[in-house]
Amino acid sequence: MTVQTTFFTHDEPVPVVVENPHGAGRILLVCEHASCTMPARYGTLGLGEDVLKSHIAWDPGALAVARLLSQSLDATLIYQNYSRLIYDCNRPPESASAMPVISEIYNIPGNLALDDAERFARTAALYIPFQSGVRDLIDAKGEAGIETVLVTMHSFTPVYHGKQREVEIGLLHDADARLVDAMMEHAEGSNFRVERNEPYGPQDGVTHTLRLHALPGGLLNVMIEVRNDLIENEEGQRAAADFLSGLLKKAIAAHSP
Amino acid sequence: MTVQTTFFTHDEPVPVVVENPHGAGRILLVCEHASCTMPARYGTLGLGEDVLKSHIAWDPGALAVARLLSQSLDATLIYQNYSRLIYDCNRPPESASAMPVISEIYNIPGNLALDDAERFARTAALYIPFQSGVRDLIDAKGEAGIETVLVTMHSFTPVYHGKQREVEIGLLHDADARLVDAMMEHAEGSNFRVERNEPYGPQDGVTHTLRLHALPGGLLNVMIEVRNDLIENEEGQRAAADFLSGLLKKAIAAHSP
Repeated sequence: MTVQTTFFTHDEPVPVVVENPHGAGRILLVCEHASCTMPARYGTLGLGEDVLKSHIAWDPGALAVARLLSQSLDATLIYQNYSRLIYDCNRPPESASAMPVISEIYNIPGNLALDDAERFARTAALYIPFQSGVRDLIDAKGEAGIETVLVTMHSFTPVYHGKQREVEIGLLHDADARLVDAMMEHAEGSNFRVERNEPYGPQDGVTHTLRLHALPGGLLNVMIEVRNDLIENEEGQRAAADFLSGLLKKAIAAHSP
Repeated sequence: MTVQTTFFTHDEPVPVVVENPHGAGRILLVCEHASCTMPARYGTLGLGEDVLKSHIAWDPGALAVARLLSQSLDATLIYQNYSRLIYDCNRPPESASAMPVISEIYNIPGNLALDDAERFARTAALYIPFQSGVRDLIDAKGEAGIETVLVTMHSFTPVYHGKQREVEIGLLHDADARLVDAMMEHAEGSNFRVERNEPYGPQDGVTHTLRLHALPGGLLNVMIEVRNDLIENEEGQRAAADFLSGLLKKAIAAHSP
């Protein structure tokens, strides 16, 4: 489609990346906020360089942890290659936060008063191919006789609206809490402070990917949030990934026949 | 994409149809509500057979008139092959009326409480390919050195909420009234009762296709509404098409160098 080919210049990366596509594990790892890359056509959106690299543009560390999980669990990983400031792939097009005008304490000048053409172009170029890609991977597993366990990987800022957050790892769910129930049980006594539906929950509209792909087919699912100061470097990323990998294995085993 | 290939069964028609793709004229004809066909997966949406064939499901006569215009103006025509009750392609995904719960006096049971997965599937299968197709055709004309004149073709019911409508042909515009101004001028003294922004106008959210494709690039544009009792048969369709064809030719000539 022209919309998608003219959205990016020819030397820009593709928006949707799949790693370990033939991973044999049940888990599909999804990272909607993997990157702070801006499509060339958008320049800076009127933001400073520091803001464009901050947590409002992406989830720092999330992709690194997801890649480690992909290795240890032999899981396919799919991620969005562009900043959520252009389109937040964990939001449907009808959500105001899909193309946010304000994020935490920052106004996003380049997102003010978007017209129909601009909203369409972003939806068609970033959201539809990404979530269609997730659907395709789940369908392909299904055809191979494997029921997907959907795991989305996120990170959150330690200080939000000036307030320190104590939670270190959040396990989020929507209507289907089965996997999170088991993960919470196995997280007891760990070195991490793990909480359910913190620092966000379904009431904040953050479970879109789960609602889109896991709930209708009854797939086990979890949205994982790691505080980003814990996964700033490889050591931290490995510690988080090792912990989460063990937790996921035990929780999925608890739900397997 | 799996979303689109599994949305329809293999023996169902494609959602987006292009006729006279190499038409040499400047006009691109767009018919968002050309058909009352339901994708097999939706059954009846809980509606009676008469309602499924009524104006709430499509614009009766609009495609027939658009085809006659395509011939007389050598214009490419693009139309949506499925009912607007599933997705109204003249509405963005963020609009409640894209997948209406109520249309005129009818509740649409099958559209109640659509979940994220269902909204995504309809948007991806019907809206995105259709409006991407319109964009592609405009871009192709542009590459051939032709600036598109965008003409969308609709029909309206003579009785709405129990009230008779006197207007016969509505010429609708959004922020750019150039073409409609010229058409209104040339419509004076005709046999049709022609009105501007009637029986709907941009305040009703009906100018989405114009806003999506014509306004950003400054393309001449009009949304044409014909009262559907005038175009029930071929005679009426020919009379309307002959009138509109002449009107469009004169109005476009008035805006050409």
